[in-house]
Amino acid sequence: MSERDEFELNELELKTEEEEISGDGLLLPIEVLLSSGIHIGTRMGMKAMEQFVYRIRPDGLYVLDIKQTDDRIRIAAKFISRFDPSKVVAVSSRLYGRIPVQKFCEVSRTVAVVGRFLPGRFSNPTSTDYVAPEVVIVTDPSADRQAVTEAALVGVPVITLCDTDNSLQDTDLVIPANNKGRKSLATIYWLLAQQVMRERGELSSEETLSVPIEDFETKLLEPSEEVFE
Amino acid sequence: MSERDEFELNELELKTEEEEISGDGLLLPIEVLLSSGIHIGTRMGMKAMEQFVYRIRPDGLYVLDIKQTDDRIRIAAKFISRFDPSKVVAVSSRLYGRIPVQKFCEVSRTVAVVGRFLPGRFSNPTSTDYVAPEVVIVTDPSADRQAVTEAALVGVPVITLCDTDNSLQDTDLVIPANNKGRKSLATIYWLLAQQVMRERGELSSEETLSVPIEDFETKLLEPSEEVFE
Repeated sequence: MSERDEFELNELELKTEEEEISGDGLLLPIEVLLSSGIHIGTRMGMKAMEQFVYRIRPDGLYVLDIKQTDDRIRIAAKFISRFDPSKVVAVSSRLYGRIPVQKFCEVSRTVAVVGRFLPGRFSNPTSTDYVAPEVVIVTDPSADRQAVTEAALVGVPVITLCDTDNSLQDTDLVIPANNKGRKSLATIYWLLAQQVMRERGELSSEETLSVPIEDFETKLLEPSEEVFE
Repeated sequence: MSERDEFELNELELKTEEEEISGDGLLLPIEVLLSSGIHIGTRMGMKAMEQFVYRIRPDGLYVLDIKQTDDRIRIAAKFISRFDPSKVVAVSSRLYGRIPVQKFCEVSRTVAVVGRFLPGRFSNPTSTDYVAPEVVIVTDPSADRQAVTEAALVGVPVITLCDTDNSLQDTDLVIPANNKGRKSLATIYWLLAQQVMRERGELSSEETLSVPIEDFETKLLEPSEEVFE
């Protein structure tokens, strides 16, 4: 990571989200979204992600523009809902993304690919675990780089959750979001599932998903049995 | 436009496209694409567009990565083909984009909105020229800013041809391309029309559009009758 990949936002004033963001028309009340941390980025800002950054905190953390995250979840859902569910594949190799992806796929009847992504999965029809998606949703383009590369290789549209430290290479549609936090991932995938169901007409635009957000969250084990990646 | 909006690519070596780009699997032979100038950007490089830049010429012109342009035309076509043609709107206010957009819409049976974009067109149902698109294709997000803003306001996915000097604000899917040249615009919209027809199954993947690219080009008038914008 060289110096030029980082951008500066010195001129942005430091504001507090609660004061400045109007929560009108968001998919969830602003307090709920903020408390899930979907807007909390990293300390590294990639240039291509600058357009989604709202401000930089005094401690150096980039904060994403929650309105744009909300907008992109809606747009992504419009796109995803146009495909046969069995041709939509959601991917997460990292631990905290697995339950959210599995729940998303269960609710939306799409295909989950979690855990280690074996090369050839999207690109080699002779692989025993071969799948031929028509659209791929990726949780973390760094951790899931192989999935992104193979989807691009076979010409499949790629939707990715992108944090401020992610590269947008081979990403077609970006959902700017904290793609590392347990609660954030649960919230993003829950909102996406709900919005896909609404776009398909399986839920009305006022109805909410019957499954609670908590079910999309990776549960923490007791400290004695905690698993570290 | 402040200094921080421009990026530097000093470390990129200067190469000639013909030597370096392998034309394998592009939608048209590499020589045809290069001669249409779809890869010729401007002297201004917006940070968010850096990911699509291939090199910077000695004269300071940014050159786009033609492979990515080709890829995004395919992805955009996959997306567009999923919508009812009558709900797909292509927009160009600037002169050189009008004929390409009109031809694209004629071939793909989608809706052309060319010339001056009156406020309210996408957002005010009482306007006499109101249209309610489900996806919008924009030729130049600067010249067509009003269309982009209104599409975002009503939550419609926006696909834009973006040059190196364009902002990606409110753009959901980018087709990186020279969106100023007469030949470039003809080529991009011709390729997009062909690819949409292929994705719909109205053309096979080997068939080419029966309408030649030249028909997508804005004709220059004799110097005596030339119209300046």
